[in-house]
Parts: sequence; C-alpha cells; structure tokens
Amino acid sequence: MVSGSTRYSEYLQLDGLLNLQKPLSAQAGQAAHEEMLFIVVHQTHELWFKQVHHELDSVLSIFSKKGKVDERDMGSALMRMNRMVEIFRLLIGHLRVLQTMAPLDFLEFRDFLVPASGFQSVQFRLLELKLGVLTKEKMCPMSTYMSVLNSPESAQVNAQADNPSLHHWVCKWLERAPFLDSKGFDFWTEYRKAVRGRLEDDRVALEESLSFSEEVKKRQLLEWTKNEEHFEALFDEGKHEKLRREGDRSLSLRATQAALFIHLYRDQPLLQLPYQFLNQLVELDEAIQNWRSEHANMVHRMIGVKVGTGGSMGYPYLKSTLSRTRVFGDLCNLSTFLIPRTHLPKLPSDFARNLSFFVDALGH
Amino acid sequence: MVSGSTRYSEYLQLDGLLNLQKPLSAQAGQAAHEEMLFIVVHQTHELWFKQVHHELDSVLSIFSKKGKVDERDMGSALMRMNRMVEIFRLLIGHLRVLQTMAPLDFLEFRDFLVPASGFQSVQFRLLELKLGVLTKEKMCPMSTYMSVLNSPESAQVNAQADNPSLHHWVCKWLERAPFLDSKGFDFWTEYRKAVRGRLEDDRVALEESLSFSEEVKKRQLLEWTKNEEHFEALFDEGKHEKLRREGDRSLSLRATQAALFIHLYRDQPLLQLPYQFLNQLVELDEAIQNWRSEHANMVHRMIGVKVGTGGSMGYPYLKSTLSRTRVFGDLCNLSTFLIPRTHLPKLPSDFARNLSFFVDALGH
Amino acid sequence: MVSGSTRYSEYLQLDGLLNLQKPLSAQAGQAAHEEMLFIVVHQTHELWFKQVHHELDSVLSIFSKKGKVDERDMGSALMRMNRMVEIFRLLIGHLRVLQTMAPLDFLEFRDFLVPASGFQSVQFRLLELKLGVLTKEKMCPMSTYMSVLNSPESAQVNAQADNPSLHHWVCKWLERAPFLDSKGFDFWTEYRKAVRGRLEDDRVALEESLSFSEEVKKRQLLEWTKNEEHFEALFDEGKHEKLRREGDRSLSLRATQAALFIHLYRDQPLLQLPYQFLNQLVELDEAIQNWRSEHANMVHRMIGVKVGTGGSMGYPYLKSTLSRTRVFGDLCNLSTFLIPRTHLPKLPSDFARNLSFFVDALGH
Amino acid sequence: MVSGSTRYSEYLQLDGLLNLQKPLSAQAGQAAHEEMLFIVVHQTHELWFKQVHHELDSVLSIFSKKGKVDERDMGSALMRMNRMVEIFRLLIGHLRVLQTMAPLDFLEFRDFLVPASGFQSVQFRLLELKLGVLTKEKMCPMSTYMSVLNSPESAQVNAQADNPSLHHWVCKWLERAPFLDSKGFDFWTEYRKAVRGRLEDDRVALEESLSFSEEVKKRQLLEWTKNEEHFEALFDEGKHEKLRREGDRSLSLRATQAALFIHLYRDQPLLQLPYQFLNQLVELDEAIQNWRSEHANMVHRMIGVKVGTGGSMGYPYLKSTLSRTRVFGDLCNLSTFLIPRTHLPKLPSDFARNLSFFVDALGH
Repeated sequence: MVSGSTRYSEYLQLDGLLNLQKPLSAQAGQAAHEEMLFIVVHQTHELWFKQVHHELDSVLSIFSKKGKVDERDMGSALMRMNRMVEIFRLLIGHLRVLQTMAPLDFLEFRDFLVPASGFQSVQFRLLELKLGVLTKEKMCPMSTYMSVLNSPESAQVNAQADNPSLHHWVCKWLERAPFLDSKGFDFWTEYRKAVRGRLEDDRVALEESLSFSEEVKKRQLLEWTKNEEHFEALFDEGKHEKLRREGDRSLSLRATQAALFIHLYRDQPLLQLPYQFLNQLVELDEAIQNWRSEHANMVHRMIGVKVGTGGSMGYPYLKSTLSRTRVFGDLCNLSTFLIPRTHLPKLPSDFARNLSFFVDALGH
Repeated sequence: MVSGSTRYSEYLQLDGLLNLQKPLSAQAGQAAHEEMLFIVVHQTHELWFKQVHHELDSVLSIFSKKGKVDERDMGSALMRMNRMVEIFRLLIGHLRVLQTMAPLDFLEFRDFLVPASGFQSVQFRLLELKLGVLTKEKMCPMSTYMSVLNSPESAQVNAQADNPSLHHWVCKWLERAPFLDSKGFDFWTEYRKAVRGRLEDDRVALEESLSFSEEVKKRQLLEWTKNEEHFEALFDEGKHEKLRREGDRSLSLRATQAALFIHLYRDQPLLQLPYQFLNQLVELDEAIQNWRSEHANMVHRMIGVKVGTGGSMGYPYLKSTLSRTRVFGDLCNLSTFLIPRTHLPKLPSDFARNLSFFVDALGH
Repeated sequence: MVSGSTRYSEYLQLDGLLNLQKPLSAQAGQAAHEEMLFIVVHQTHELWFKQVHHELDSVLSIFSKKGKVDERDMGSALMRMNRMVEIFRLLIGHLRVLQTMAPLDFLEFRDFLVPASGFQSVQFRLLELKLGVLTKEKMCPMSTYMSVLNSPESAQVNAQADNPSLHHWVCKWLERAPFLDSKGFDFWTEYRKAVRGRLEDDRVALEESLSFSEEVKKRQLLEWTKNEEHFEALFDEGKHEKLRREGDRSLSLRATQAALFIHLYRDQPLLQLPYQFLNQLVELDEAIQNWRSEHANMVHRMIGVKVGTGGSMGYPYLKSTLSRTRVFGDLCNLSTFLIPRTHLPKLPSDFARNLSFFVDALGH
Repeated sequence: MVSGSTRYSEYLQLDGLLNLQKPLSAQAGQAAHEEMLFIVVHQTHELWFKQVHHELDSVLSIFSKKGKVDERDMGSALMRMNRMVEIFRLLIGHLRVLQTMAPLDFLEFRDFLVPASGFQSVQFRLLELKLGVLTKEKMCPMSTYMSVLNSPESAQVNAQADNPSLHHWVCKWLERAPFLDSKGFDFWTEYRKAVRGRLEDDRVALEESLSFSEEVKKRQLLEWTKNEEHFEALFDEGKHEKLRREGDRSLSLRATQAALFIHLYRDQPLLQLPYQFLNQLVELDEAIQNWRSEHANMVHRMIGVKVGTGGSMGYPYLKSTLSRTRVFGDLCNLSTFLIPRTHLPKLPSDFARNLSFFVDALGH
C-alpha cells in the first residue's frame, strides 16, 4: 500500500498521449471542427486493438502449449475471451459516437485524408490473421493492400501469416478430446443411430399427417431431404472434406464431433468450461461481425456510394466482405446437428464418472 | 392530484396480462423451462409493435394533413420518430436476452411450434406497409404468407396495402418545398454549376498529380468517371426515373432536390427541424435494419441452417431480405451528392431572410 | 419438425394481449397520446418480472435441494442467473424509452392515475422477498404498502415472507463447503498468518518511508489502522456477529470464509463454477441497483420533487432507498479482504487433487 | 478527392500512440497481465475527455458571444451537446470492460500505482470547472488535491477557475429572453394566476372527496401544502435568492422563468431548438452523473471499502460526492412547476406571431 511516487499523468504518459492529435485541416489553415472526433475515434480504436492483441496472445499461448491445455488456465482463457467480446461491443458504441458527425461536415476535411484509409490498419490485419479469418492463401489477392504498407509493417504481416491461428489451435484441442475414443462408449455410432431414428420418425409423421395439403407435404418433404443431406455430409468423411476444400466447412470432422459432444453433454462437470469456451468463440466471431456491419453502415451514411479515401470500393465493398469473414461459423452451424435431449444416447455411468470431479465435493 | 381510485394492477390489467403465457410443452406434459422466455420475448415484441403503430399513426396524420404540415407539429413528429428509433434499439436488446437460451434447449419445445413463425406477425407486416418497405406490388409473391392468415388478419393487411405510406407522404412534403421555386435564387442551376466546377477541379488535379503512378492515376480516373455518372443521373430526370423504375431510387427527383437543399443549408433556422426529421427517417430505417440483422443472426445461432418452424427458409432467407428492406435508402445515399461548404452557392440575403424567424428574437 | 397446427397469433394470445391497454384519459374523453407509452412500459416490465420469477424459482429449487447442490445443475444455475442480469439491463433500456416522454405531456394524464403507483407492483415486492432484499422483519413499517393491496395480493406477499430467500440458501451452501474442514490444510489459520504478515510489511514500509512528509505519514497510518480493523472483525466471530446484528454484514462468518476461499483459489477446476456463481450474484445485485437508480432519476425528471401518484415521497424517497437495497453487498465487500496471489498460502498437492477432475481429461 | 500522400499510421501517429503503455509491474519484473487493460481504459478515457473539451469549448464560444447567440449556431450547439452525452454513455461502457478484471488480479499491480489516482485527472477537473459543477469557492477544501498537481497543471486549473462556466452563460442567455418582457403578454402574471387556480381546485376536490378516509385526507393535505410552498418560493424573489444562497437553487429567478416559458410553449417554432437545448443540458448532467455512479460501483467492487491508491476515501467518498455534482439540477426540477396544457394561459396571436418563421414556409 505504501511509499510509491507514481503520478497519474506520468503513469499514463498524458503529455505524449494528448499531443498526438494533429488535424490536417488545421495545418492547411482550414480548421474543420469535426476532424478531432475523427482522429480520436480512430486512435481509441487502435488502443483497443492493442488490448485485443494482448488478450488474444494470452489465449493463444494457453491453447498452443505443448501437449495439453492446463485445466487451471480455462478460467483465465474464458475471462479474456469475454473481455475481447466486450471490447468489440464497446467499439460498436464508438461508431455511434462517430455518427454524430454529419456527412456534410466530414467533407470539410475528407480530401486531406487521401489516400489513408482504415483499411490500412496493420493491427486489424494482424488480428484477422491471428484469429484465422485471414490466411496466407487468402492474402494473395491482397497485393494492393500490401503495397500501401511500409516495410516494417509488411514484415509484421508476413511473419504473422506464417503462424498458426486460434482457429488452428482450437481445432487441434478439439481433435485431442479423449472422450471420443472411450472404450465404454462409442459416441459417434450412438449419435448416428439416434439421428437416423429421429429423421425416420419425422418422415413417417410427415407422410401420415392429415393436416397438411398435398402441396405443403411435398414442400416439407423436400426440406426433410435437405436436412438429411446435411447429416449425411456429417457422417461421411469424404463429403465433409470436400465441403472443407470448397470453404463450406472449416473444422475437421473429428473436431466437429468433439464440439457436438460438448454441446450435447454440456452439463457434465468436465464439459461445462469447454462448452462456455466454444460459446465465447461464437460470441467473439459475432461481435466482430456486428462491428464490421455497423462500420459498413456508417461508411454508407457518411459517403453514400462514393469510393473510399484509400481508393477502396467503399460501402459496397465493405458490405460484400461481411459474409466471408466468420471464422468460427462451423460452431454456429452446429445447431443444425443437435437433437433433443430426450433422443440423446445416455452416457454409461462409468463413462460419466470420468467427466466428474475427483471428490464429489461441490455438491455439499 | 386528487381523488382517484385507480389501482395499479387493475390499470395495467395484470390479471389478464400475466395469464396469457401458455407453454405448449407443459400442455403436452413435457414442460420445457425455456419456453416461457420464448413466449415473453415474443409478447413483449408485440406490445412494442403496438406502441410503434401508435407513434407511426400519429406521424402519418401530421404529414398527411390536407395542404400542409403545421410547423407547430414538427416538435411532436420528431419526438415520436425518435421514440420509434429507441424502441427498435430496445428490441435488439430483447434478442440478446433470447440468446441466453442454448440451441439444445430450444429443441425441447421447438416441435410444438410448427408451423407458427414470427414471419406471421400481422403487426410487423402492417408496419412494413405503413413505412413503405412493403407495397401492394411487392405483396404478390407473398401469397404463401397471406394463406396462413385468418380472414380478419388478411383483411387488415389488404386494407393497409391500399393506404399511402410514410414514404409517400414524406416524398409529397419534400416536393412541396417552396424554396426550390424561389424567384431570387435558382438552387438547382447553382448547385449543378458548383458540382461541375468541383468535378473539373478534381479531374485536373488528378491528371496533373506527380505523386501518383500511371497505374494509380488510371484507377482513380475510372473512379472519377463513376462518380460523375452518379451526378449525371441526378441532373437528368429521364435517367433518374429510369433508376426509379429499376428500384435503385425511390424518391422523385424534385423530392431528392429538396432533401439535398435541406442538408446543404441545414443551419438556416427554418431548415433545422426538417433536417432533424430527415435524419430521424434514416435512423429509423437503420434501427429496423439492425434489428433484422440481429434477428437473422439469432436464428442462425439457434437453428443453424435448418428450415424455420413456419417452413420458411430460415437464416439464409432472412439474410437475403436484408438488402431489400430499406425504405429511406435514398436519404442515406444523399451523402453521395453533398459538396463541401466552401463550394456551396451562397444564399442571397433576401432569400435567407425567408428561412429565418419573424423577429430575430432568439439571438438575444 | 412435423404436423403441428399452431398459429402464431393464437400461441401468443395476441387477441387478448393487444386489447389490455386501456388509457384512462381516453375513457374520460381527454385522450392523451402519451398514456399508451406509459401503459406499455409498465406492462412489459410486468411481463419481464414474471420471467425473472420463472428463473429465480428455478435457481432457488437448485440451491434448496435437500442435502446438496448437484454439480450437473451448476451450468443451468449460471445461465439463469445471467439471464436475470440481462433482463434487468434490458429494463434499464425501457426507462430510457419512457424518458422520450416530456414531463409536460405526462401531466395530461397523470391525475387519472391517482392513487396507483409502481410502488404497488406485487411481483416486484415478491422478487425482493425471494432475493432477500426485503425480509419479514423489514415489512413491519410497510403497513401503508400492505393496505393498498387486495386480499389475494397480500396473502401472496405474506406467504412469500415466510419462505427462505436466495440469500439464505446461498449462505447455507457456502457454509457446507467441505474444503474449510480439510485435515491437510487449515485455510483460515494460513490466511490469517498471511494477512498479518502483509499488514506488518505495510506498516514498516510506511514508517520507514522517506518520501512522505510527517503529515502524510500520519494520515496513512490512520488508514492503515482502519484497514486492520476491517480484518480484525473478520477474525473475531463476536465482532462479526455484532456487525451482522447492526446490519453491516449479512453472511455468517463461515459463509464469508468459504466465499473468500473460492475467490482466492478460483483457478482450481472445482471452484471455477462456484466463483462464476458468486460473481453472478453480485452482477444481479448491481443490475437491480442500477435499475432502481435510473428509475429514481426518471421520476425526478418527470415530476421534479412533487409527491408520487401513490402518495409516496417521490424522488427523494426512491433515492433514499438505494443504499438499503443490496442483498449481496458482503460478496462485493470481499475485495476488502483479498491479498495478492504472491502472498497466498500454497495449497498442499493432496488437497489440490481434491479440487480437480477425476481424470485429467480436459488437458488433452 | 485527389493527390494526397497521407498514410493511415502517420496520420494517427500510431508509432507514438502504441508505445505509451508502460506497465509498472513489468518494469519491476513482476509482469501482471491485467495492468495493460488498466492503462488502456484510462488512456482512452483521457482521449475522450480531450474530445469533450473540444466540443464544450465550442458550445461555450457560441453562448458567450458578445450580445447574442446566433440562431444559425443553434444546430451546431445541439449536435455538440448531443455528442458529449453520447461520449459519456460510451465511457460508462468502458467501465464495464474494466469490470472484466477480477479484484484479485488488480491486487497484482495495485501497489505500484500508489499514490496515483484517477482523482488527479486534470482534464476531468477542468471539465467540472467549465461546466460549473466545480467553482472557485468550492475549490478551497480541495487544497489536498491541488498539492498533488505539478505547477503547469495547477496553473491550468487556477486559470480555468477564473473563467465563467457553461452554467453562467446559459443563465445569462435565459435571462435575456425577450418574450418575458413583451407588452402584449405578461407571462408571469398569467402563469401565477393559472397555478393558483389549479392549486385551489386541487384543495377543494381533496376536501370534498368522499373516497378518502380522514387519515388519508390529512396526509394528502400535508402534501398539498408542501407543493404550495414550492410554488411560493417561485413567486417570491427573496425566497428564491435565499434558496440560491443555501445551494438549493442555482439559476436566477428570471432565468428560471424563461426556462419554464420554453418548456410550456415548446411547440412554438422559435422555442423548439431552445427546448431541445435545455433538454440536452439535463441529458449531459445525467450522463456524467451516471458515469460517476458506475465509477463508484466499480471502485466498490474492485477494492471493497479500502482506501484509494491516492489516499482518497475510496468508494464511500465517491458515493458521497454523487449528490453534490449536478450542475443543471434546476432544469430537472422544473417539472415541479409545470401545469397541464389545458390550464395553460393562451398566447395572444400577435405574440405567437413573434415566435414563428418569417414566412410560413415549412408548412407547405
């Protein structure tokens, strides 16, 4: 509690920090009131991106540990994932503040910004690489992007492109799941049986239904078939890998099985934190997605359909990237394959024991 | 302050209200804890939709008044527009509460809901008609939808489809703007001149620029041309009407001109409230859009890529409707046509006088 | 997926629901536009209160189970706690929508409401009893309140006042914690030793510090003493019980010790969910508190310092209740007693084993 | 659109910005993961404070203009007020991100911070002075505070303390309101008459009421009397000034009258923007208040009831300042004095004309 000599303004380096806002309009003798907001919104974004890297690096180091993930680290991993989610939600709020700027007022300094563009944020690009949204393969068509970076920046980007992403490590972690290989319980066989039973029940009920007209029945059967196809791709490694190559799946089949198992038996003590972690991955994916979507809307409102300052295609471009930028979409799509608890294969008690605590100590 | 005998629970009809939650799973003897949440989220949505209709009806009645909009009503119109925006933001929060339900838990009562679907909300459909998102013409392909309604419901929908929408009345209001016909100031000629000047300046600067490579120059010129085309469509009624028929524009050219004028000279006392009103229209459009987008995400997360309970196409369908459902997109696109204040034609002082207060009383 | 005949509007009982809004101003022939909003905000509040009861009842049933809390239920308990938190955050948003009503407009129907008041919400009162904010003892001075209820309402309130609250069951659950009685590790002795060491280090460093003036030193020593007193009350059951009787503490000393243990060793697998649960209790407490505070602000803004419609004291009254209405304040105050991890007694490995999973299966 | 050479990272000074985070724990060789978050939250706060000063200075310059406020500036003033409100709401979100840090983790670097404290933020102190929350008179007991500042900092604070605040200029602006002195309409006499009439009606209705018991009647009469006293202080300059000296009022009587007039006749075109402006003042006051309140809660949760790093009294101190820190409370309290529109003195048509536009041009 004692004896420090830390001063608030020195600790936070305020002398430096509060002197880094250099409006170009003022330098050109045409001071535009609104440029300050533009700068502050972008600088705070970059500070938060730094924080996101700080958290993401720590999650990566937990999940890339040689051999195993330490159970005692799961709590920290969850808290840090959650923090990244909250940060992206906060950043959405930043865009709302930026929207208090009228498009006409933006025009008063917009010309000075050419050809700078948020598109050039190195921290954001590195984030995409670390998460696995962006990969080395996808970077080829980005040569235009790379050309605007200076050499230390592009070195950083290239170096990161060689490192495995969070998506990679999560996939590995899921694939190692020991409960898939248990002797006492063959989850995959049992699950497949349960699915087939349920599909068959549905089909019979549908065909025998009196309350549907022939036309409605026909349509519903078509949908039933589509549903069955989803499952078939899940039961056939060849089909799954084909979908993966085409970009429709990203996790391996085994990782998908483990994720499904965790969802279906999440109440088992051992699975509760992994279940929370899978959810956090989806939450983060979605939060970043929402930020992108709001950002695209904001650009639309600010410049209409004009091209961006960096020569990018502005709003239409941003809108078009939205669908390509989910990295944990497979975890979201898992819902397609869930079956109701009543149809779920029951875990043998020996097997369930392995998913419990050493002593039954909590249930005191 | 006096003598009432109102009781809280009677005023709010709580006896009725709190007995309208009838989980089907419980009726079937398979009580699913989460169904209550599902019901409450939908019921509160419907209550808020009723409130939105209450506000929207009042704005419609202000703007559809024979002959003119009373200036003394502008304050109320703004407050009510703002309230609708806040309500849709609140509804987005509702979806977040619904997301606390795990997809697996949804499955425990989902089968009971077939073929009901939020898609069938009559209040939401009426809202789309009143705003102008949905029109009589667009309703033809909705025959499937209409077939699930009972006859009082479809009568309501059909009746509303015959009434002019908010979009219609806003368009009329803008077209009546007297400042476009002023003898002392031909806004459109002046604006066109200013635009042409600015475009020319840009082109010259671009061609003479030494800092760009030939390749970059070429790309920028292409973009300059695209930009010019946007303006050309604005200066040519024929082109504008063609775009309108194709669905790329919704406001008439004259209404677009008035909206532009209001944006460019918004600081004039007479134009400040109309400016705010145009902004509120965009805000409402965007808030509804955001709600739709979050709703689509929520469906994705809840059922993956399965078909919806109502037999709709689920997530992919919802996602695809997003781009078609803006009604005041033209107002958002206005930003394309703004020019910096420094290039703006100056208003003659006689003309400006007409945009001021009778006495210069506020500037006390 | 099959054969249902559920209709959206029937499932949600929309015919009933959308006909329960009966503005008194309209009935009196003086229709006030804003009364609808007033009704809808209150009705949606009551619907959400019903939902909160649904969740709280389920958490209560998990924690009041004879003998023990089933570990497999902890996930559900956490999800439901989290949902209640999200609901109260949503309700804060409701107040923001209500604030779009101008105070002058409220006056147009306020007289009709007398003497109804939100104060009379039975569901809210029951909630306070179930949580433990309100107790039988505190209800005596509430005779005025009870007198406005009709007999089924007061019967409900009285019945609930006899049931143990969530606070009660949480206290019992903590008191049963087996890790406090372990033979291999006497947490309380070790912790006390660590605290005393740290306090002593602080005092010495303070006295020997050269960077503080005598005056500052004196002030800091005073604070050191106050800090020590907090700890002394923690180490002396008599003092703790005295504070409890005076209303400064609510948990028993043993429950407090267990909660401290969970905070300090939260990374142990067995303690991660209990740690999350304790945090959720604080979050809920805080969310309700924030709702109360916003509600008081809203009342202030709406009626200034006038008395409320129910004859309550309005804003000043509401403000004054804020400090008395935390139920899990002790959990928040725990931070007073935390010591840095570096000073923490290390858990013997045998003991730590008891806080782990049966197989070390997750760390795959 | 042309020829710039601005680079994103240079424009935003990222090299500088992203190198200003210097965790003390790392420097001491005891790197604590969570210190980065602590630094980033505080630095982003300071960046936003800079932005708030930018906006506030501009509003001050509009309202302190010699002689009058230009009507053409009202739109800008409103947008900037609104922006400050949105920024404080965003800052509340920052605290929520900070709450993802566990109190135990804070302890790992807390000792390094002594005696720095957010209390020492010069920008925040200047903000309080500019708004008028803090005044020269109130600064005397702050000598402890001043002593921790270095000399450029305390010079800044002292200089600001000599400048008139926003509260001062708003008061002056209201006092100049010409509509209070109109020959055709003596607002104050008419209003007083209306109030007296309404109070009398209330009293009679209360006394003659059959539905109240004698006891209830007595209580209601007491409240009626208290209400009347509020109004009496409004009609008696002496009483008003006494309340002002005691700190219960802050605006002069004449400014209060003008504010009341604006509220009561807000629909008049001339009064709509001033009405919005008064509301924005209340919104800003409230947003800052909410931020303070959340900040106090966060401190409570983080350190319990320990003293703050700066030697401040921590949570209890922060909580106690909450009630003293509203600067536009009088505007909020105005609701006490509103009377229903039906009782409002009608404006003579000549007089109303003066509150309209030069031409009746909007109502097209």
